[in-house]
Amino acid sequence: MFEDKNSVGIVSLKYYEIKEKIKFESGVEFGPITVAYETYGKLNENGDNAILVIHALTGDAHAAGYRSENDKKPGWWDTLIGPDKAFDTNKYFVICTNILGGCSGTTGPSSINPETGKPYGITFPVFTIEDTVAVQKKLLDYLCVKSLYSVAGGSMGGMQAIQFVISYPEMVKSAIFIATTSRLSPQAIAFNAVGRNSIISDPSWNNGDYYDKDKKPDRGLSNARMIGHITYLCEEAMYNKFGRRLQDKNHYDFNFDVDFQVESYLQHQGQIFVDRFDANSYLYITKAVDYFDPVDKYGSLTNAFNASNAKFLVISFDSDWLFPSYQSKEIVSSLMHLGKDVSYCEIKSPCGHDAFLLEYDVQSKIIKSFLSDSKGADCE
Amino acid sequence: MFEDKNSVGIVSLKYYEIKEKIKFESGVEFGPITVAYETYGKLNENGDNAILVIHALTGDAHAAGYRSENDKKPGWWDTLIGPDKAFDTNKYFVICTNILGGCSGTTGPSSINPETGKPYGITFPVFTIEDTVAVQKKLLDYLCVKSLYSVAGGSMGGMQAIQFVISYPEMVKSAIFIATTSRLSPQAIAFNAVGRNSIISDPSWNNGDYYDKDKKPDRGLSNARMIGHITYLCEEAMYNKFGRRLQDKNHYDFNFDVDFQVESYLQHQGQIFVDRFDANSYLYITKAVDYFDPVDKYGSLTNAFNASNAKFLVISFDSDWLFPSYQSKEIVSSLMHLGKDVSYCEIKSPCGHDAFLLEYDVQSKIIKSFLSDSKGADCE
Repeated sequence: MFEDKNSVGIVSLKYYEIKEKIKFESGVEFGPITVAYETYGKLNENGDNAILVIHALTGDAHAAGYRSENDKKPGWWDTLIGPDKAFDTNKYFVICTNILGGCSGTTGPSSINPETGKPYGITFPVFTIEDTVAVQKKLLDYLCVKSLYSVAGGSMGGMQAIQFVISYPEMVKSAIFIATTSRLSPQAIAFNAVGRNSIISDPSWNNGDYYDKDKKPDRGLSNARMIGHITYLCEEAMYNKFGRRLQDKNHYDFNFDVDFQVESYLQHQGQIFVDRFDANSYLYITKAVDYFDPVDKYGSLTNAFNASNAKFLVISFDSDWLFPSYQSKEIVSSLMHLGKDVSYCEIKSPCGHDAFLLEYDVQSKIIKSFLSDSKGADCE
Repeated sequence: MFEDKNSVGIVSLKYYEIKEKIKFESGVEFGPITVAYETYGKLNENGDNAILVIHALTGDAHAAGYRSENDKKPGWWDTLIGPDKAFDTNKYFVICTNILGGCSGTTGPSSINPETGKPYGITFPVFTIEDTVAVQKKLLDYLCVKSLYSVAGGSMGGMQAIQFVISYPEMVKSAIFIATTSRLSPQAIAFNAVGRNSIISDPSWNNGDYYDKDKKPDRGLSNARMIGHITYLCEEAMYNKFGRRLQDKNHYDFNFDVDFQVESYLQHQGQIFVDRFDANSYLYITKAVDYFDPVDKYGSLTNAFNASNAKFLVISFDSDWLFPSYQSKEIVSSLMHLGKDVSYCEIKSPCGHDAFLLEYDVQSKIIKSFLSDSKGADCE
C-alpha cells in the first residue's frame, strides 16, 4: 500500500470529550473540552506500554501514518513512529493529541461555545502548559493508560513533556525532551510578542471576532509566521538554502516585490500557514509558551523534577538559537544534581531549530537505544 | 551654555538643492533633490580637512550639538564630534547629511513631487547605496570639499562609507567602517523583508498613498520597528536589560496585554518610532540596504577597493549578530590582500548591534588615534 513497509498505515482522528470542567492555572474553570487524538499500536493489559508524543507549536494529532490510501503526506513524526521504528508500535501504544487551544480538532478559540452557539474567540480562557498536559492526562485516564513508558516532545512539545513529568511524576517512566527549554529567553518572548502584535494589529483580527467575517487576519498571521520561520532556521541554514540568490530573476527589480529567494520562501510559508491555522490559536499557544517557567513556579528545576523517578533523554542541536543548547544543559544539570538517570545528546546540525523535524536518522537511533536500553541512550 | 564644554554648540539644519537630475543605478533619472545637512568646524583653504559622517538606518543629519539653548538631546554622534573629541572640530570640517529617501529634510517619498504637487509616495524611484553616496558627493562639491580626510559610518552608514570609497577612491584619504558589512546575510534580509511586509500589509499603507489620510500605516511601521529592535539587541543584552521580568506586575495577566518587560520595551520603541519616521522611507531605505552587495557588483571586494589609496579602520562588536564580526573580517581580509593600510578592532560588548551607538569611550579612543596617527589605530 505504502512504500514505507514500517508505516502504521491508515489512521483516523478520534475524539474524546472531557465533560466536566477543568480548573485552569488562571483559576478559570473551563469545559467541556473535546480532545482530538490518534493512537498507534495497542495498549497492553497492564496499561503501561503507552508513549505520549506531543506536537510542537502549530502541529496536530496526526503524528504517524496516512489519512487515506491516496494520502501522500504522512504524519509529522512518521519517521519515528511505526513498527520497528524508534517509537516501535509493535511494542508501544503511541498517543498524540492536538493541543488545548489548537485548531485541529481539540477545543480552542475557533470552537463553538455551547453556551452562545458562537466561536469562543478571545472569550476562550488563556491557558498554560500545565493546563495542556492536564487535558492530555484526562485522555490517558479515559484510555486506561496506567503509566507512560515514555513522554516525548520537541520544541513546545518538549515543554509539555517537561510539565507532564512535573505534574504527574508517578505516571512517567521515561521522558524525552528535544530542542526545548524550561523557559524561553527574553529574545524568544520578543519574537512571540511581535508575532502576536502583528495579528492583533491586523484590523481584520477584529478583537478576535472574525470567524463569520469575509476577511480574516491572514496578513497579521502570515507575518507572525514569517517571523517564526526566521527563528526556526539559523544563519547557516539560510546561507545553505538561499544565500543572497534572487528568486526567478537575474537582476534586482527596483520595486517592492520579492527579490531574494529568502523573501520568497518566507512569503510562501506565511501564505500556506493561514490556510491551516487559526490566528487566535496562535495568540493563545504562543502566550502559553511565553508563560512556561517551572524555574520560577517551583523555585528551581531541581524542585520541579524532584518527585520524578523517570529516566531522561535530552537532545539539543548546536545551531538552534531559538531553544539553544545551554537551555537543555540547564535541564540536564538539574537532573544530574538530583541524581536522575539522564542522557544528553547535542547533535551537530546546520538546520537551526528546524533540525528537530529534519535530523531524523540520528534522533531515531538515539531514541531507539534510549527506549530499549536501561543504560540510557547511545549519544556517540 | 551646555554642560559639555566640548560641544559644537547650537547648530541648524541647512539645505542644498541638487537641481540637475541624477541618474540612479536603476537607470531612472531623478531630480531635483534637496539635501538636508549639518556641518561642524571649518573647511580649510585646501578643502582637504573634511570628514563625512554618515547616519544609520533611521538617523538624520543632526549628528552633533543642540538645536537650541533649551534642547536637552544632542545630535546622535555628539559624543564623538566636537572640539577635542574624536572627530575634532578644531581640526576637521565635519559634514552629515540626511539620507536620500529619508524623512528628515532630504528628498524622499514623503516629499512633494513638484510635477504633481503631491507627495511622491511609491512613485519615488527605488535607489541604492551607490545613489545615496552620489547625492552626498554633490553636496561635497557644492561645499568645495576637495578631498575627505575621512568618511565614517556605522551600520548602514558604514555601507555608505564603503561605497563612498568605491565610488570616489581618489577623494578619500581614510575610511572608518563600524558595525557594518559589505552585504547583508540572508537572515538580515529576511528581517528587513518581514518588516516591509508588515508595513505593506497594513491596510492604512494604501499603496504608499497615506500622507493626506486620517490613518497612517502606524501599526505596520511600529511592528517593523519592533522586529528591528530585536536584531539591534542580542540575547545577552536582553537578559541584562529585561530577563523574564514582568512589567509593572507580579503575576501573569492571563490576557493579551503586555506581560513581560521586553514586550513593553518593544511596544514603546514601536510607538515612538511612528512619530518620527515615514513608513515609505522605511521601505526604500531597507531595500537599499538589502541590495548593497559590492562583492556581486564588482566581482570581489578586492576589485571594489582596488583603486583606493585610503587607510582604513574597521570596528565590529563581538555580540553583534545583525552585522557579525565575520563580515567585518571579510572586509579586512580583502583590504589586507590588497596591501592597504588597515586597522581592525573587534570590541567586546554585551550590547549587540546597538553597541555602535553605546560603546563610545572605546570607539572614541580608537577613532582619535586612527585619525591622528599615521600608523593606524590603537586597538589594544
